[in-house]
Amino acid sequence: MYESYWRKMGNKCDITLSGYQSLSYFANVKNLCWFLEPKLEEEIKRLHNLVGNAIVDDHYIVVGTGSSQLIQASLYALSPPNEPEPISVVSAAPFYSAYAEVVNFVKSGLYKWAGDAHNFVKNGSYIELITSPNNPNGVIRKPVVNGDEGILIHDLAYYWPQYTAITSPANHDVMLFTVSKSTGHAGSRIGWALVRDKEVARKMTKFMEISTIGVSKEAQLRAAKILGMICDSCLDPTLDNFFEYNKSVMIERWQRLRQVVKANDHFFTLPKYPLQYCLFTRSFYETHPGNLFIYF
Amino acid sequence: MYESYWRKMGNKCDITLSGYQSLSYFANVKNLCWFLEPKLEEEIKRLHNLVGNAIVDDHYIVVGTGSSQLIQASLYALSPPNEPEPISVVSAAPFYSAYAEVVNFVKSGLYKWAGDAHNFVKNGSYIELITSPNNPNGVIRKPVVNGDEGILIHDLAYYWPQYTAITSPANHDVMLFTVSKSTGHAGSRIGWALVRDKEVARKMTKFMEISTIGVSKEAQLRAAKILGMICDSCLDPTLDNFFEYNKSVMIERWQRLRQVVKANDHFFTLPKYPLQYCLFTRSFYETHPGNLFIYF
Repeated sequence: MYESYWRKMGNKCDITLSGYQSLSYFANVKNLCWFLEPKLEEEIKRLHNLVGNAIVDDHYIVVGTGSSQLIQASLYALSPPNEPEPISVVSAAPFYSAYAEVVNFVKSGLYKWAGDAHNFVKNGSYIELITSPNNPNGVIRKPVVNGDEGILIHDLAYYWPQYTAITSPANHDVMLFTVSKSTGHAGSRIGWALVRDKEVARKMTKFMEISTIGVSKEAQLRAAKILGMICDSCLDPTLDNFFEYNKSVMIERWQRLRQVVKANDHFFTLPKYPLQYCLFTRSFYETHPGNLFIYF
Repeated sequence: MYESYWRKMGNKCDITLSGYQSLSYFANVKNLCWFLEPKLEEEIKRLHNLVGNAIVDDHYIVVGTGSSQLIQASLYALSPPNEPEPISVVSAAPFYSAYAEVVNFVKSGLYKWAGDAHNFVKNGSYIELITSPNNPNGVIRKPVVNGDEGILIHDLAYYWPQYTAITSPANHDVMLFTVSKSTGHAGSRIGWALVRDKEVARKMTKFMEISTIGVSKEAQLRAAKILGMICDSCLDPTLDNFFEYNKSVMIERWQRLRQVVKANDHFFTLPKYPLQYCLFTRSFYETHPGNLFIYF
């Protein structure tokens, strides 16, 4: 859906890389996340502060090769390292279709997929993945297991003003974001985690170091440019505001879809979402998910 | 060591990316490795055919976020999926310091690190990692376990003319390469595997899909540009030949190092490597490793 916006922007976010740039594994040796490009860190902070969708200033930023890698890094960092049994990982159904595969594919002895959080019988510690707005159905979510020893990972890929009202800045221990859902650059494979605890951030960084020795510098530098452009578009009235433009695209698509369904089919209905006041757009907005999940 | 070469090339391998390019997860849906950029595939084939260091035309190419990710993808693809015990992974000492950590970090139930291949008591199937020229000591290697059920992964990161004589095109089942060692672009995190068997290539692609949903398009496009430039430099006499230039840099560094050691210390010596005829440079050349490993 984002292509029309970026085509309209033309060459405003062109980025040129020379053969001699970014040769090193390192981006900033003084940073806990030593492969995070300083410019990307700066633009991530700027964007969250501008949109107001997450508290960023007292969190560490860990960059990942998309949020898939960050989910694994979070599990690695948050799982007890020396238990005889892997910790259970749950999420409330309907959940993102890839979660089970991402958690189980190498049969880790640290963590294992345990399915629908609604049916989970808690017994000691567990990890709950909370996707809000949810993929695939757009619902705003909170943890459902509610156990004392629950470790929570908040996947906030869709918590942006084009999809839903920004009702308050999220302020959780581990929050995951990705450019594929925020800017539309799925091919870049750039995600980031906001992590409150220093040791958790350090272990997540270690995961990236072992699994891929960091994250592509080219992709980080381009993401920085694009996030910067989005910030500029919110502040400069001569530019099309990225969120307003894409919010309109989402509204139009959902309107067309609702009309088609209404006119042609009486066997199913599309979900309804509550109107909520969005602090960023200063208007009431209902969620317009980037995915569609139909209940028959 | 490569920075001086790339600085000399100036803006000859500049690459410009616009905001609307490479938005999608997909690069080529008709390819088994659906996230591999066609231009990168083309330049990888061109370079191997030109250098003569690996048979590429009857192999599938799988791109990875550096060769670290490809090692894991190979282990995932080659491990028996439903065994009660993980398969043993070995390599002859001295081996690349990160192997043990890469194999064990999430305590996979599919594979486990079993240390020095010289001490491995073979009992059924196992995976042997063969690094040639070896990291850290530059020795040309073959498998050491020699069991009937050995599954071999050849890490050929240093099998390029600036490091060693190219004595014949490598033609193994799974061969790993990386731009960090071939071109010096460690920050790009681009590696590739040449894989003979289609099902193994498919499972490696699946690993990339689950772990990171592909590989950064920006990094792939830049790597394509840089590999293309290296090919051009071998064919166009007006350009500094990449391999000759960096071979000279390696020779000079090793000469300086040998002088320093000879003049100042009688307690250790540097390794000696045999002179071999290089089919690419058409001259005799001894290995000049990119790393130094000193035996006391």
